[in-house]
Amino acid sequence: MQYAFSNRIQNVKPSAIREILKLVAKNPSIISFSTGSPSNEAIPVEEIHEIAENIFATRAIESLQYSMTEGYPSLRETTKSRLKNTFGIGRDFDEVIITTGGQQGLEMTPKVLCNEGDIAIVESPSFVSGINAIKSNGAHLIGIEMDDEGIKLDKLTEVIENSDRVKLLYLIPSFQNPSGKTMSLARRKAVYDLCAKHHIIILEDNPYGELRFKGEDVPTIKSMDDAGIVVYNGSYSKIISAGMRIGFICAPQEIMQKLIIAKQVGDCHTNIFFQMVVDQFFRNYDIDKHIRKLCEIYRDRCDYMLDLMDKHFDKRVTYTRPEGGLFIWCSLPEGYDSMELAQISTKNGVAFVPGCSFMVDDQAPCASFRVNYSTPSKESIAKGIPLLAASIEEYLAKK
Amino acid sequence: MQYAFSNRIQNVKPSAIREILKLVAKNPSIISFSTGSPSNEAIPVEEIHEIAENIFATRAIESLQYSMTEGYPSLRETTKSRLKNTFGIGRDFDEVIITTGGQQGLEMTPKVLCNEGDIAIVESPSFVSGINAIKSNGAHLIGIEMDDEGIKLDKLTEVIENSDRVKLLYLIPSFQNPSGKTMSLARRKAVYDLCAKHHIIILEDNPYGELRFKGEDVPTIKSMDDAGIVVYNGSYSKIISAGMRIGFICAPQEIMQKLIIAKQVGDCHTNIFFQMVVDQFFRNYDIDKHIRKLCEIYRDRCDYMLDLMDKHFDKRVTYTRPEGGLFIWCSLPEGYDSMELAQISTKNGVAFVPGCSFMVDDQAPCASFRVNYSTPSKESIAKGIPLLAASIEEYLAKK
Repeated sequence: MQYAFSNRIQNVKPSAIREILKLVAKNPSIISFSTGSPSNEAIPVEEIHEIAENIFATRAIESLQYSMTEGYPSLRETTKSRLKNTFGIGRDFDEVIITTGGQQGLEMTPKVLCNEGDIAIVESPSFVSGINAIKSNGAHLIGIEMDDEGIKLDKLTEVIENSDRVKLLYLIPSFQNPSGKTMSLARRKAVYDLCAKHHIIILEDNPYGELRFKGEDVPTIKSMDDAGIVVYNGSYSKIISAGMRIGFICAPQEIMQKLIIAKQVGDCHTNIFFQMVVDQFFRNYDIDKHIRKLCEIYRDRCDYMLDLMDKHFDKRVTYTRPEGGLFIWCSLPEGYDSMELAQISTKNGVAFVPGCSFMVDDQAPCASFRVNYSTPSKESIAKGIPLLAASIEEYLAKK
Repeated sequence: MQYAFSNRIQNVKPSAIREILKLVAKNPSIISFSTGSPSNEAIPVEEIHEIAENIFATRAIESLQYSMTEGYPSLRETTKSRLKNTFGIGRDFDEVIITTGGQQGLEMTPKVLCNEGDIAIVESPSFVSGINAIKSNGAHLIGIEMDDEGIKLDKLTEVIENSDRVKLLYLIPSFQNPSGKTMSLARRKAVYDLCAKHHIIILEDNPYGELRFKGEDVPTIKSMDDAGIVVYNGSYSKIISAGMRIGFICAPQEIMQKLIIAKQVGDCHTNIFFQMVVDQFFRNYDIDKHIRKLCEIYRDRCDYMLDLMDKHFDKRVTYTRPEGGLFIWCSLPEGYDSMELAQISTKNGVAFVPGCSFMVDDQAPCASFRVNYSTPSKESIAKGIPLLAASIEEYLAKK
């Protein structure tokens, strides 16, 4: 049988990251800096267990029966008031729904906004599964480079002013995946004004925003959203548990009506038991204290890894010094290809993700690569960074 | 702000069923025959609680951390061997993945197979959220009527032979939603042969297949699939719990590769805790005994409702006598509109779903309507059917 697939799905190629993860899975002795998982120690297992017991005791049937597409009403309320009180997010015209992890919002937003051939702009580099979610809905992607303040404004203005088919701008303004960069307040304002002027919807993805362990918070773009152009995509994966798949969206009602249709046909509703778990966590436990604990863990890991990089890495290699999130973005000198380095380092027993994986065109060579510090233990970091440094030496010497 | 949405999502109109469910939600005294939920008594709460305890005790971190897109390996195995041993489903070229409830398979399959304007054929009537999932991916829908053996073969042949853009045939062969009908073996074979000849993919949706309480099992279409043209969509919602959102797909590897991409961008993976729950349920409990218990509950409810219909309904009203599943399909005499009946009956305190909701063109009047017997208690059925009968009298007399 010869199968014929849709153009939109043919748009999405299997990514290099998957191949590396498979290699790592096959060889458990490899030290992996390649995932984006929270630390195991960051998962509040005891609290979740207590809450689960309470649910089985008091509302077992409700937690296992069909539920509403928009989400568990109590969790929608908790999420809404937390967004309002902690982040100044949410106008009268906004609505909050619960999603099956942050990923679902990344898929549904281009689905409801973009026709095939419409243009969506992303930061370059950007989150692989965000890029692919947009591609899988047939939009044409344009990647725009970042400087230290975020996506480059002059280039963004140029692209927007030269096309009437730009529908969507996908941004991860805080502790961006993979670069670890945080967009400045001035840049956020300028980007928002530009999009408001041209009626372009911003998909603001903020899974790492609460994981700040240094410096000062920068207001979200959604908190400036008087015009109703921002779809804010959030997740409880990084602060409670990723395996439960609970996220949320805050967006203007008119967009939300379409997102609810997409959600209804997408998976009917999100696992209701864990919606209740998250809701009770917020109502009966000290979430701020819990997040402070996570930030301590990640600050410690990040500092530890940076110290080892400072000590062992060839001076020609540069890297970001993130103030939060899960990733460090390293760059080899120009002309080198991190995919070639990955082959050497995997052989030497340490894995990371080559930068090309995060590009709209993932076939072009890329000197940069992503390193994760949240998943590996300090022991693994202590063993892995010197191995990575040696692999870099080997590659730089060979080329 | 004037929003512009994608054509594909504009294709999907909010359905009448939602409006009725909202009315019912607002007035809890209304007796509802309108849902499609399993009976509360059908959910194995104690077993799920025991398994949850075991998971917290032995693999808590694994159950709350990121997991694989394809699904929990042990559950994929359990599902695969059960499909093989119990239903003869699965060739060497087939693969099984876990989905976020049966609904996700209905969304992903047209997404990976249909370009905008490609044709998908559905039974008329058919499952609302199946119809909408296909519409939301831009395919053009054609509904084909059923006779007592299933979708009409002459009409299906005509549509397929007169177009080269038919890509997908969506069928619910067993205890169809909403009609309660089961396609005959001869019709299944004929439909399969026709599709194999024309390289059309069949999406066989079988959420109710195990809920047979009378008569003899009919083999699934997937069990005949030597050519690799059937995507089999299954669900654990009706036999374990709907709220947990666990389903599965069995499909040829080449199609599966694309479905895995759609799944990866759709929600990364399905809630891993409840994948473990289902897996342990199959491994450590007697699922067949559990299903026999469910079938007893549903046979009892169905018989009870049919007896009351026989006793109270105007003789001009006809209805199916299902051998399984959750629904009875009733028809008023020609020329009557079940939407008008719904207005009267809701006022009288009993709700059902008008037939137009299940049509590709849901604006045309429809004499038929769907009644559910799995959710209401026998007390509610005893009170509700006479009320519905009286509403029918009132409507027939008035018109």
